Amino acid sequence: MLEKYIEAALHKTDCDVVLKNANIVNVFSGTITKGDVAIKDDRIVGVGENYKGTTEYDCTGKYVMPGLIDGHVHIESSMLTPEGFASLIVPHGTTTIVADPHEIVNVAGFDGLHYMIEAGKRVPLDIKMQLPSCVPATPFETSGAIINGEMTESEIKNVDVNGLGEFMNFPGVLGCDPDVIKKLEAAHNVNKVIDGHAPMINGDTLNGYICGGIVNDHECVTVEEMKEKIEKGMYVHLRVGSYTKSLELAKAVTPENSRRVIMCTDDRHAADIYYHGHLDNALRKVVEAGVDPITAVRMATLNCAECYHMRWRGGIAPFYYADLVVVDDLTNFNAELVFKDGKLAAKGGKAAFDVSDKYLPETILNSVHVREVTADDFKITLKGTKANVMTTESTGVMTGLEVMDIKSKDGDVDIKGTNVAKLIVVERHHMTGNIGKGLIKDYGFKGGAIGLSVGHDSHNITLIGDDNECLAKATNALREHGGGMVLVSKEENKTYIVPLDIAGLMSSTDPLTLVEESQKLIDKAYEMGVEKTKEPFFSMEFLSLAVIPHIRLVDKGLVDVIKWSFIPLDAE
Amino acid sequence: MLEKYIEAALHKTDCDVVLKNANIVNVFSGTITKGDVAIKDDRIVGVGENYKGTTEYDCTGKYVMPGLIDGHVHIESSMLTPEGFASLIVPHGTTTIVADPHEIVNVAGFDGLHYMIEAGKRVPLDIKMQLPSCVPATPFETSGAIINGEMTESEIKNVDVNGLGEFMNFPGVLGCDPDVIKKLEAAHNVNKVIDGHAPMINGDTLNGYICGGIVNDHECVTVEEMKEKIEKGMYVHLRVGSYTKSLELAKAVTPENSRRVIMCTDDRHAADIYYHGHLDNALRKVVEAGVDPITAVRMATLNCAECYHMRWRGGIAPFYYADLVVVDDLTNFNAELVFKDGKLAAKGGKAAFDVSDKYLPETILNSVHVREVTADDFKITLKGTKANVMTTESTGVMTGLEVMDIKSKDGDVDIKGTNVAKLIVVERHHMTGNIGKGLIKDYGFKGGAIGLSVGHDSHNITLIGDDNECLAKATNALREHGGGMVLVSKEENKTYIVPLDIAGLMSSTDPLTLVEESQKLIDKAYEMGVEKTKEPFFSMEFLSLAVIPHIRLVDKGLVDVIKWSFIPLDAE
Repeated sequence: MLEKYIEAALHKTDCDVVLKNANIVNVFSGTITKGDVAIKDDRIVGVGENYKGTTEYDCTGKYVMPGLIDGHVHIESSMLTPEGFASLIVPHGTTTIVADPHEIVNVAGFDGLHYMIEAGKRVPLDIKMQLPSCVPATPFETSGAIINGEMTESEIKNVDVNGLGEFMNFPGVLGCDPDVIKKLEAAHNVNKVIDGHAPMINGDTLNGYICGGIVNDHECVTVEEMKEKIEKGMYVHLRVGSYTKSLELAKAVTPENSRRVIMCTDDRHAADIYYHGHLDNALRKVVEAGVDPITAVRMATLNCAECYHMRWRGGIAPFYYADLVVVDDLTNFNAELVFKDGKLAAKGGKAAFDVSDKYLPETILNSVHVREVTADDFKITLKGTKANVMTTESTGVMTGLEVMDIKSKDGDVDIKGTNVAKLIVVERHHMTGNIGKGLIKDYGFKGGAIGLSVGHDSHNITLIGDDNECLAKATNALREHGGGMVLVSKEENKTYIVPLDIAGLMSSTDPLTLVEESQKLIDKAYEMGVEKTKEPFFSMEFLSLAVIPHIRLVDKGLVDVIKWSFIPLDAE
Repeated sequence: MLEKYIEAALHKTDCDVVLKNANIVNVFSGTITKGDVAIKDDRIVGVGENYKGTTEYDCTGKYVMPGLIDGHVHIESSMLTPEGFASLIVPHGTTTIVADPHEIVNVAGFDGLHYMIEAGKRVPLDIKMQLPSCVPATPFETSGAIINGEMTESEIKNVDVNGLGEFMNFPGVLGCDPDVIKKLEAAHNVNKVIDGHAPMINGDTLNGYICGGIVNDHECVTVEEMKEKIEKGMYVHLRVGSYTKSLELAKAVTPENSRRVIMCTDDRHAADIYYHGHLDNALRKVVEAGVDPITAVRMATLNCAECYHMRWRGGIAPFYYADLVVVDDLTNFNAELVFKDGKLAAKGGKAAFDVSDKYLPETILNSVHVREVTADDFKITLKGTKANVMTTESTGVMTGLEVMDIKSKDGDVDIKGTNVAKLIVVERHHMTGNIGKGLIKDYGFKGGAIGLSVGHDSHNITLIGDDNECLAKATNALREHGGGMVLVSKEENKTYIVPLDIAGLMSSTDPLTLVEESQKLIDKAYEMGVEKTKEPFFSMEFLSLAVIPHIRLVDKGLVDVIKWSFIPLDAE
């Protein structure tokens, strides 16, 4: 096995591919060097001057970087399959991702995990798959699956499982919940990396959290938070996602600490990737924010490889895997050529691989299990005239609680002509019939119902609407299509749907179609009044995420996250 | 298991040890921070301000560094057992070493390896044991053991084996020798680190060598060599040994490349450690040479931990093992307290652990197998009057070849009154009777014989002398004592010996006795004429090392290393 590399390095045999006359971003020395990058089969065999290749690319004036590594991403947030996701991100220079399939595992359990692993093997993208650690994320809701400590102990040994996904249940860690400890020790015992999720945790509490064997954090927002976490031995992700962009952290990157900073996208929509890019976009942003370009590339390559124990990845040197990106310069980072394991994987922004042969096992299809509903199911009966209404920020995912006067009529709230709409969560995994009911202020949408089968983290159906008939139609449409994004217009008497046939989270259609079809629905939602500052659909995904303050709605009712308990919709 | 750390970090239980008010060398952020380091059992649980410990140490004005890590060392070169070695180096702040037991394995095979592993487990020093890769080092000599590819395949899986030791056989790597490839792939297949040894190898040849999966190099001498190796993805050791000090490399350490530089001692005598220190000495030297002290500490801690995939070692942070050194300042690096896995291991330069209970399995004792010899065995018969005589440098380990006129008398060379002495190598493993014979110029020793059972890398008996009777006495004394350092004075009719009872390489006596006794022999050797620029005994160890130019003597005869073949002693 080694002979072919050694012999090619020594010019005893020809190389397969040579990138000639490139400016090479050397993440080891922190310098730009000039030369040819010689590739045999899947690995780089040398950087030199006289290598001959069966295929040669003139890279004069271009830069060659190591393939980019995304340190933390939920593929499902793109609403694309692993194959579709790869076909969008690889052309932007990302060749390795650390993926946490937290969403699909909340819906489909290990079937979801195994689907992601197998689908991921079909594309030229290295997917280091983390085992989700917190399924379900909270005790308040009905998820599709429950993964306990015992199941974690068994599955973490899977050779296709890279580590344990973000440990959001920090109260469980700090309280030494036995099932939590079992999960942490399971990963620890097989020497696999445990990802953190520690927003605003600091001081001795952070010490305790890290003592769970937790290695990194992608939730830093402030410079102080990042500095403390690095001092305490954590790797810190600088995140450039669709909602969450921690670019403030760029200010805290120094030559002394940068080796502990890695890049990630966490959640990024297909359209965002398609129009704005992936880690190339992140590199542009951090360089704009003042980070030295070579340091930025290190953050998106070598540092992440080190954090996750990826050997022979993240650098351009002999014996390293030939994951390479040829870019125009270190400002725009436009990926002209992308190589994965030595093979051309993308050129001029287009994937050079085919994803039309779809892998769609039965186990992850038809995941929406609800009975057919009627308008009456969406009546909201208040005892009094005051209700606990959810408010939302114009940007970000925090919510608030406002006590409002709400009129009722015929055993239902009467919200016509107000700035309040119904917020509904319909359980969709086990046909429990649970329908969580709430009210939301200032969402803006009028004249029907809008909803989707994606709702962090249990992924029940979340709906907003002002008409019970339309809410029922929307739910029934999602039931019929096995999930999706839906919009029902009362005036047009019409249902618009973008199916998300895989676990109700992802679409098996081609990425561009998904981008275009969902854009139509988004445009329609704005037309029907959604506030311009909000992203229709995507902002709704978080209304059920009962780990972020202040109040959330799940299938079993309204949750006050700060009190860590249910609260009634009635305010008194 | 994790609960105890989490609870101590959260102040729910007391800590065991707290280092109060310290200046902490933070290798993650590259800064000095102030605080208390709190320890529970074997790990640090936090750096904070209000931790209480069963035992507390006031560290006001002191610095706390992570325990130092030696990236490449042959314990045997100290002539001490692993226990004795630990008792000398731990008080200097070294808590982890990557050890290559190349010497003892050349003598005793895997018995030697297993002895080192088991002995090492008896002391508070983390010994990451590498499996020697090149036993024997050359095809010219008779070693005690041969380790082939198949044996390597099996032994590399040993959980106590950390990786594959320095791959000195670079012609074998470059030539894709099947047995060499088998060894490399064996380590590769179990994801263990392969150490390099690549003096002066550069350019595309270096590419080929690295394609053997080789990770690091401790043989860099020049700044250019180091820069190229770092650019090519290698970790580079900055070495501060007894002979080889690559302090020139300090000039090439930059903020951009320093993360790829690690420190090592390679070969260091007991006396050197006792009088001058270990990695603390190395830190003093590199800081003197201009390296920033925090960078220097990183090179001796975190960087090495990363190179060798040591998790939770090399830094001061929650969940890291409590390997800690309290020093007076970052100039002298005087170790006042040393903690290993949370326990006090040394104080004020003295080991706090006992090594008097010696582990001495039969397998590594009585390793000198030679028949009793007589004066006649040391006659050197030349055919003519010219001989290929070995010359040596005043410092360093290179040798030269000089053709000299040599007189003969009674079937033996007549060297009386000349600057030439006999150089002898007696095979001592398999009683083959092989005696390699040569001549050496300007060693200075007169009036007897000097020799030892340490001779790189096959460790046959190396002798220098001008009297056949004394050469025989010296050999027979080593035979009787199972190895050692020996000196025979004809005038005094006396034999001086320091036994090296373990594999003929190491002494089971206590370290200080060894230091003192060998110093007496060294003084005697100088008295008998050894050039002041040479180290008696230690300089002789390398006269048989047939991998370093120009000529060497092994048990089968004289070797021209450049020609890679035997040459006769007769010059024409």
